[in-house]
Amino acid sequence: MKVYLDNNATTIVDPQVFAEMEPYFVQRYGNPNSLHIFASDTHPGIKAGMERIYAGINSPREDSVIITSCATESNNWVLKSIYFDQILTGKKNHIIVSEVEHPSVIATAKFIESMGCKVTYLPINSEGLIEAQSVEENITDKTALVSVMWANNETGAIFPVEEIGAICKKHNVPFHTDAVQAIGKIPVDVQSFNVDYLTFSAHKFHGPKGVGALYMKKGKELMPLLHGGSQMGGYRSGTLNVPGIVGMGKAMEQAIDALDYEMSEIRKMRDAFEDELLKIEDTFVVTPREKRTPNTILISFRGIEGESMLWDLSRAGIGASTGSACASEDLEANSVMEAIGAAEDLAHTAIRFSLSRYTTQDELDYTLKVVNAAVIRLRGISSSYAYAPAGHESGLDAHHH
Amino acid sequence: MKVYLDNNATTIVDPQVFAEMEPYFVQRYGNPNSLHIFASDTHPGIKAGMERIYAGINSPREDSVIITSCATESNNWVLKSIYFDQILTGKKNHIIVSEVEHPSVIATAKFIESMGCKVTYLPINSEGLIEAQSVEENITDKTALVSVMWANNETGAIFPVEEIGAICKKHNVPFHTDAVQAIGKIPVDVQSFNVDYLTFSAHKFHGPKGVGALYMKKGKELMPLLHGGSQMGGYRSGTLNVPGIVGMGKAMEQAIDALDYEMSEIRKMRDAFEDELLKIEDTFVVTPREKRTPNTILISFRGIEGESMLWDLSRAGIGASTGSACASEDLEANSVMEAIGAAEDLAHTAIRFSLSRYTTQDELDYTLKVVNAAVIRLRGISSSYAYAPAGHESGLDAHHH
Ligand SMILES: Cc1ncc(COP(=O)(O)O)c(C=O)c1O
Ligand SMILES: Cc1ncc(COP(=O)(O)O)c(C=O)c1O
Repeated sequence: MKVYLDNNATTIVDPQVFAEMEPYFVQRYGNPNSLHIFASDTHPGIKAGMERIYAGINSPREDSVIITSCATESNNWVLKSIYFDQILTGKKNHIIVSEVEHPSVIATAKFIESMGCKVTYLPINSEGLIEAQSVEENITDKTALVSVMWANNETGAIFPVEEIGAICKKHNVPFHTDAVQAIGKIPVDVQSFNVDYLTFSAHKFHGPKGVGALYMKKGKELMPLLHGGSQMGGYRSGTLNVPGIVGMGKAMEQAIDALDYEMSEIRKMRDAFEDELLKIEDTFVVTPREKRTPNTILISFRGIEGESMLWDLSRAGIGASTGSACASEDLEANSVMEAIGAAEDLAHTAIRFSLSRYTTQDELDYTLKVVNAAVIRLRGISSSYAYAPAGHESGLDAHHH
Repeated sequence: MKVYLDNNATTIVDPQVFAEMEPYFVQRYGNPNSLHIFASDTHPGIKAGMERIYAGINSPREDSVIITSCATESNNWVLKSIYFDQILTGKKNHIIVSEVEHPSVIATAKFIESMGCKVTYLPINSEGLIEAQSVEENITDKTALVSVMWANNETGAIFPVEEIGAICKKHNVPFHTDAVQAIGKIPVDVQSFNVDYLTFSAHKFHGPKGVGALYMKKGKELMPLLHGGSQMGGYRSGTLNVPGIVGMGKAMEQAIDALDYEMSEIRKMRDAFEDELLKIEDTFVVTPREKRTPNTILISFRGIEGESMLWDLSRAGIGASTGSACASEDLEANSVMEAIGAAEDLAHTAIRFSLSRYTTQDELDYTLKVVNAAVIRLRGISSSYAYAPAGHESGLDAHHH
């Protein structure tokens, strides 16, 4: 059996999404900005794609949704534009991000910090959550940007973007949220709260890799990160990735259609699966499930190195993760576990299961069996487990059932 | 009949390229950086793709080929990295580019110019060519970068990158060349001359849109433009565009295989087609054909607004261009024609025909008929043609046959 439970890393492209993209490779291949029929061939697809994307986040037409190559680009764009426009010019000197942003925000923040920008990294609390109050406490009249993600990729923790948006509005500071892990999992409506910039990436909601977007509110337009031929209204140059736009549009439409299913059925399956996992001794989950996206579980198995568990799972055909899927194949501690101050041994034991609308009950039942067997096998050969009995030095409550 | 003669704007995806990409959407969809079988599923495709790309430009393994989302990103990356690393820090204060670079270089140069960098824009001569000597004359010990394209997108003019590379080496200045219009048209071998950075884009050689690359010589590594999860050795973060890499690799392999055909057969077809076009009265071609890529013709029809000609062609099913395919649909003068100082009326009359290995003789015969009819129709209703007889005020020699 092959079971994919790593949907926060990337997702299968929905066959209908692929079917819509397909004609735009070999048949409708024109450059949309040319002045001839081969260009016009691409226009209906682009139009439909853009309309679906605007509709998917309920963006007013007067605001901009700019297609990028990925969320990493969108996140870099926001922070670096703010740097060029506000920090380098001396108008402002400070930005605020959470300490558990995706590396595409953290590493960019560190880069502009090295270029002279002050950066506040908001801490998470013991539940893995950001408190909106911490934004209020750190914002100054020199703050150029607040960037706090909507849902965390490792835990699924949902951050209080409505409250943070309101605080930003009060202080007249632009607010950016990385909504990569929110689209298709919880309702995302840019008109329902104050947000100026919102990032997303197609491959996280059953669209293709290599295409993402940035929503930009009217009046808050950024300077471009990619200068050139003035595509996308001059905000993002480069020949349009036509199949990418078509695919992201269709994926967005389907994500919206499937949202109820995700929030009810997938949530129920996730909860039941989690209940079963927590029956295993010495397991820990940080963020309460009602404060998480419906598809995500980050769970620690005391005494079991996350990577060891991954290999046992992979041998059984199951794909999961120790947290974010970055390029590093080092044995790194899970960054959320580190941020909440979990003991060193626990920080290395986290495993992330992330479901999708393609996940079946059979797959979860099978996974549960494999996990149970792996726990017995790995704890049997674990030196740390022998020396660190349940509840000891964890800084967390152990779940004993 | 439908005839595509706008291959410098973008190209049809080769069906074999698409066939290789296809399994990487719905079947092999894992994130290559995950630690499980769904990731491993993608590794052979990425490995083959990267090997084909390295082989295609004869890059040594110790140098880096970094996958980007397009040539625009690659070009922005080079100039902005140099800006951050060399200009902003005060180490250097100057870069050199040609005045006919693609907008992704020109607009980026103008941006860093507005941030305090000195920029020299090298002029082209009356044949639309850059003289290497002009680099020698403008280079100083404060020059941080020379960026001169290999082949111009509008005229096909081939610039003396070997000589320019040698001058840069002598002065110890990094040399970047935008090889977007060179790949698949002329031999590109990064070991055959001195070059530190080389840009290309898959969709210009029958690969997919949304994927490009930057070659970087060992020891000349740039700081990233996109910070994040450290994919691509940390030089370009963002989830890998797996089908894009697979597709670019296959397209590169095929471009190399087809190079002889391009340089002999396509060249012959282009030359014969050009001979026929030049039989039309009052037509002008700037760059001598032996100094051009084998597939490109930029030709002016006195008295005929380029856009008017395009519409006549498009109505007959033929796709051509007035020059670069940028987002602007304004009636702009062709920038190369402007740069050589062609009279205002001629600068608006340029039409670019760009062939590919998919172009057939039948298509060219048909196009010739349509062009001839369009010239008669459009000159008949042209006020400027009536007032500007052949050879008058053109600054160019008219071809009369
Ligand atoms: C929250 C979050 N932001 C940004 C990204 C980056 O997405 P991409 O790799 O598509 O650029 C990811 C993906 O790992 C993510 O989970
Ligand atoms: C010479 C040259 N450089 C760069 C580009 C930009 O390529 P892309 O639109 O794929 O970023 C083009 C395409 O128009 C080009 O012709």
